[in-house]
Amino acid sequence: MKNKYVIGVDLGGTNIKCGIVTEDGEIVKKVSVKTLAKKGPETVIEQMKKGIKHLLENETKKIKGIGVGAPGIVKPKKGSVENPPNLPGWGKVHLGNILEQEFNYPVFLENDANAAAIGEMIFGAGKEIRSFIFVTLGTGVGGGIIHRKKLIRGDSGAAGEIGHVSIDYKGRKCNCGSRGCIEAYIGNAHLVDRAKRSLRYHPESKLHRIIAENNGYLSPRLINEAAKQKDGFALNFIRESGKLLGYALASTINVLDIPTIIIGGGTAGFGKPLFDSVKEGAVDRVLKSLKPKVNILPAQLKNDAGIKGASALVFYNLKKKSK
Amino acid sequence: MKNKYVIGVDLGGTNIKCGIVTEDGEIVKKVSVKTLAKKGPETVIEQMKKGIKHLLENETKKIKGIGVGAPGIVKPKKGSVENPPNLPGWGKVHLGNILEQEFNYPVFLENDANAAAIGEMIFGAGKEIRSFIFVTLGTGVGGGIIHRKKLIRGDSGAAGEIGHVSIDYKGRKCNCGSRGCIEAYIGNAHLVDRAKRSLRYHPESKLHRIIAENNGYLSPRLINEAAKQKDGFALNFIRESGKLLGYALASTINVLDIPTIIIGGGTAGFGKPLFDSVKEGAVDRVLKSLKPKVNILPAQLKNDAGIKGASALVFYNLKKKSK
Repeated sequence: MKNKYVIGVDLGGTNIKCGIVTEDGEIVKKVSVKTLAKKGPETVIEQMKKGIKHLLENETKKIKGIGVGAPGIVKPKKGSVENPPNLPGWGKVHLGNILEQEFNYPVFLENDANAAAIGEMIFGAGKEIRSFIFVTLGTGVGGGIIHRKKLIRGDSGAAGEIGHVSIDYKGRKCNCGSRGCIEAYIGNAHLVDRAKRSLRYHPESKLHRIIAENNGYLSPRLINEAAKQKDGFALNFIRESGKLLGYALASTINVLDIPTIIIGGGTAGFGKPLFDSVKEGAVDRVLKSLKPKVNILPAQLKNDAGIKGASALVFYNLKKKSK
Repeated sequence: MKNKYVIGVDLGGTNIKCGIVTEDGEIVKKVSVKTLAKKGPETVIEQMKKGIKHLLENETKKIKGIGVGAPGIVKPKKGSVENPPNLPGWGKVHLGNILEQEFNYPVFLENDANAAAIGEMIFGAGKEIRSFIFVTLGTGVGGGIIHRKKLIRGDSGAAGEIGHVSIDYKGRKCNCGSRGCIEAYIGNAHLVDRAKRSLRYHPESKLHRIIAENNGYLSPRLINEAAKQKDGFALNFIRESGKLLGYALASTINVLDIPTIIIGGGTAGFGKPLFDSVKEGAVDRVLKSLKPKVNILPAQLKNDAGIKGASALVFYNLKKKSK
């Protein structure tokens, strides 16, 4: 039994997903429980304990620790989670202490996007890469920065907010209150809004029919379907969106001198047209010395990326300690 | 004799400035020699040796090492300087080895903007601050990132290029080839260009007379003079420029979760109107949790910042090693 085992917990707004994960990033056992977020932190914590207990039932493997990826501001040293969005009533919860007392394993917490970045470093596309910027495209645009095999955490653990790099100070209004944030162009709702606005000038697009068939509903997935059916509008729209992301990344690459980007999340499903245009946009805008180095890679942790990223926190932190 | 002494060398395009510096950042002896950049790297290196030898003449203090701040891409571990702008014919020069062999002291090299950031951390405005972004405003807009008391170097030591954060992907053309880089708004030449363009709509500004008196010449210093004479246009122009810098910094602050900014360089001489508006712009655009934390400070190393920054490299690296 050469393998080391850890537990990864992905605390989401709807479900808490827990798994026992090997040091190769393989999930050997998995359980999902409802978050019951509306019932407040005590219930959510009970649910989390329930999930972990379920995993440990009849389990003979030696577990090295528990990693938790949580939304909001996470302070790993204090083991606290503050005001996670989608989890009402939390304020500040010392989740680390609570779980350590319950299970008597070392517990490592991290913001979920940062956990995903560490997951890519330990198990995924970043395994052989010293420094990279991880970007996740979904409802929001988030990320994490790995610099010389270490997570850049910033002052309070909130570093990596790639979604709030602005590409236009007079641009689209973002939910955060600023203007021109790349999230205000390619976050799911904004992506759909932009597509719908442009569609007015493209009566030829298949998307009109697709929207009609879906009772007026449009999603990134449906745009992708149209693109796969070679709809010119949908393809151009994906390419244009990729370029804008490339522009935002160019600023980030210039500041950090980190030209490798790993992109995950639902919208990464746009695939090659997206990745090619992100690269085109970034290469067009980065400093000359960086142009040949720009490298845009798809994330490798797809299903259960949350559990794997959370579990990677244990391997990452135990490795740091053993040094 | 409680003090430790090191040598700092500021390799500029026109002059090489060398000094013996105490661990309090005081320069006890100083010499400046011509760079003679046009004569190529061998001559420049001879000049550098000449300057250092001059410092060491009749010197009884024990010197702990030599720090060099150089333009271009500097690889501290290899001790090499690559293609420094303003120093023709360099290609790649192993400056570290050359100086170590000549003087038999440990030599530490760093890009000049990064050296200045380390200078502020060791001797200046960043002494008590764990993480900050250093920005220098002059011909170009450069910088360096200090994260938890360490310099973020990026992949090849070029991190900190704050000047090439874009605020508008359709904006002003930058020397780097991109668009909307903040340097294309507030780098000296761009600042003057923008002021001249706006002046057409402001016949009331005192700057018209000042420009006429200077034979058509305008500079940031002259704009500052007008502002100090309460010229409304000049003041507004400085405020507008500061706001734009604040917008560029907001993207950087969001990505790094580092809300403390230290600003140096000639244009920082605009003083309070600039600093206030940088803060206003940044606070307006950063994420909500960061708004109360934004802190914009003037750099403390002014005269001989180059020598002091270079000398700080020795203290910084020896401290790291002794840990």
